[in-house]
Amino acid sequence: MSKILVFGHQNPDTDAFASAIGFSYLAKQKFKLNTEAVALGQPNEETKYALDFFKIDSPRVIKSAASENVDTVILTDHNEFQQSISDIKELTIWGVVDHHRIANFATTDPVFFRAEPVGSSSSIVGRMFKENQIEIPKRIAGILVSAIISDTLLFKSPTTHPSDRTIAQYLAKIAGVDLEVYGLELLKAGVNLASKSENELLSLDAKTFPLNGQNVRVAQINTVNIAEILTRQNALEKAMKSESEQNGYSDFILMITDILNSNSEILVVGENQSKAEAAFNVKLQDNRTFLKGVVSRKKQIIPQLTEAFE
Amino acid sequence: MSKILVFGHQNPDTDAFASAIGFSYLAKQKFKLNTEAVALGQPNEETKYALDFFKIDSPRVIKSAASENVDTVILTDHNEFQQSISDIKELTIWGVVDHHRIANFATTDPVFFRAEPVGSSSSIVGRMFKENQIEIPKRIAGILVSAIISDTLLFKSPTTHPSDRTIAQYLAKIAGVDLEVYGLELLKAGVNLASKSENELLSLDAKTFPLNGQNVRVAQINTVNIAEILTRQNALEKAMKSESEQNGYSDFILMITDILNSNSEILVVGENQSKAEAAFNVKLQDNRTFLKGVVSRKKQIIPQLTEAFE
Repeated sequence: MSKILVFGHQNPDTDAFASAIGFSYLAKQKFKLNTEAVALGQPNEETKYALDFFKIDSPRVIKSAASENVDTVILTDHNEFQQSISDIKELTIWGVVDHHRIANFATTDPVFFRAEPVGSSSSIVGRMFKENQIEIPKRIAGILVSAIISDTLLFKSPTTHPSDRTIAQYLAKIAGVDLEVYGLELLKAGVNLASKSENELLSLDAKTFPLNGQNVRVAQINTVNIAEILTRQNALEKAMKSESEQNGYSDFILMITDILNSNSEILVVGENQSKAEAAFNVKLQDNRTFLKGVVSRKKQIIPQLTEAFE
Repeated sequence: MSKILVFGHQNPDTDAFASAIGFSYLAKQKFKLNTEAVALGQPNEETKYALDFFKIDSPRVIKSAASENVDTVILTDHNEFQQSISDIKELTIWGVVDHHRIANFATTDPVFFRAEPVGSSSSIVGRMFKENQIEIPKRIAGILVSAIISDTLLFKSPTTHPSDRTIAQYLAKIAGVDLEVYGLELLKAGVNLASKSENELLSLDAKTFPLNGQNVRVAQINTVNIAEILTRQNALEKAMKSESEQNGYSDFILMITDILNSNSEILVVGENQSKAEAAFNVKLQDNRTFLKGVVSRKKQIIPQLTEAFE
């Protein structure tokens, strides 16, 4: 049987890696598929910490399916084509496991598609192991629980669903870690930002959203100190403008998220600042504003922007 | 909690009814939702037979969600907006359970979406009861197994998945019916066509597909005698042309399917007959041709047409 590649979105975060690794393993057991988990980018510091902790080799980074001689793929933690592999429109999609909105996605044949409005794709993958009574290896449980911690900011994000905590506790037990202790270590590993260039910061977790004909880039940086990041505001704005020109983004929004206190500062450059202001009912000052209680791009930024752009 | 309406596609078949009835019940138990199963059209003869057999009241037929003062819906057995309720674009979609291709569908927020390439949406609903260890009432098991029999033509259609038979056997046991005996009675109930007008025949199971800017209508009639239907070819073509003019279909394709021998005659009227010929590698004679072994619109007609129209 020819190989099926399993991968998360571009600029992969821990859930993009973990859901691909977990679902690739599950698909071998349950659907007897010949799968390989790969990635569309290098792991970030947090993901590296989790992969190292559970002694998992980092998946290969690939550029296109064609260059791998593969024509069938499985998408995890994303479904929108512009967030996927470069040649997605040429490929057969076997299936999708995701927890985001569904958009810019279509198939010509019926496919496997499982999306749920929960905190993490890895949460869904974890429950699929249970539902199908498939034993979870320790390392797989470890990377899946890492992704749930990462996406829910240890269950503090408003995207957290009660089932996330339940499955995380189950997985943590198999992985042999204490949720709180390991969780804080993991989150701290992800916020070691001082050594990174502006372009690196902007690509840690960035996605493009087509909103009513405009391409809006929304990046997120998790930190324990918003002020520290803001000392680099000028250089960040310059990099955001330069990336926008190169890639045709009408707007670039950077969320700088305080993961301990669950707030974000947003920095906005581009043609539609007034739409961003309308979306969040704020006035930008010096291109930025503080959004109290906002930590989730998916739930607290994109739906509001989508409405403001319509 | 405000009410959520659950319904299958327009021109509902047995699976559209059964998956809505089954998932509505399941959603009450599992997600504590206040659901009501409704329908976007009257039940056909086969569906009526199944509803009567299991003493289920036929769900109410509704025209729009707005007229019901409802803003949230669950779609079963379809996802494409043009096959759904008239005001679908104004509504919040809580979730989808389906076994068709995914297209012309989008949400602004994460949703529950479960699609699998199996023979029947009711097959997925049936398995969800098992996965979640929710007891299935006899009447729900009965309508679900009816839909699986209907969609798979008693497991003879190429859309049949091994899991369809497994879950159907399980459901038949709960429903207290013999699969083969009840199955043949059910399928025969659906092919009592002599009393129907041409327009009624064309709306028994019809869907519209946007193919590269054209709207192609594909209807299907199940029968045990193709020749009997073909005695009405002229009147059928007239009705197909008239419906196309009224609704802006570029093409109207009618599948007349012999459910005992698993073949179809297709009748094609419209602007793109040559594309239909290319899709199936045939020459139409008198606007029609015989397609050996073809019984599935979803698997043996739509993907081929999609390619030919590109």
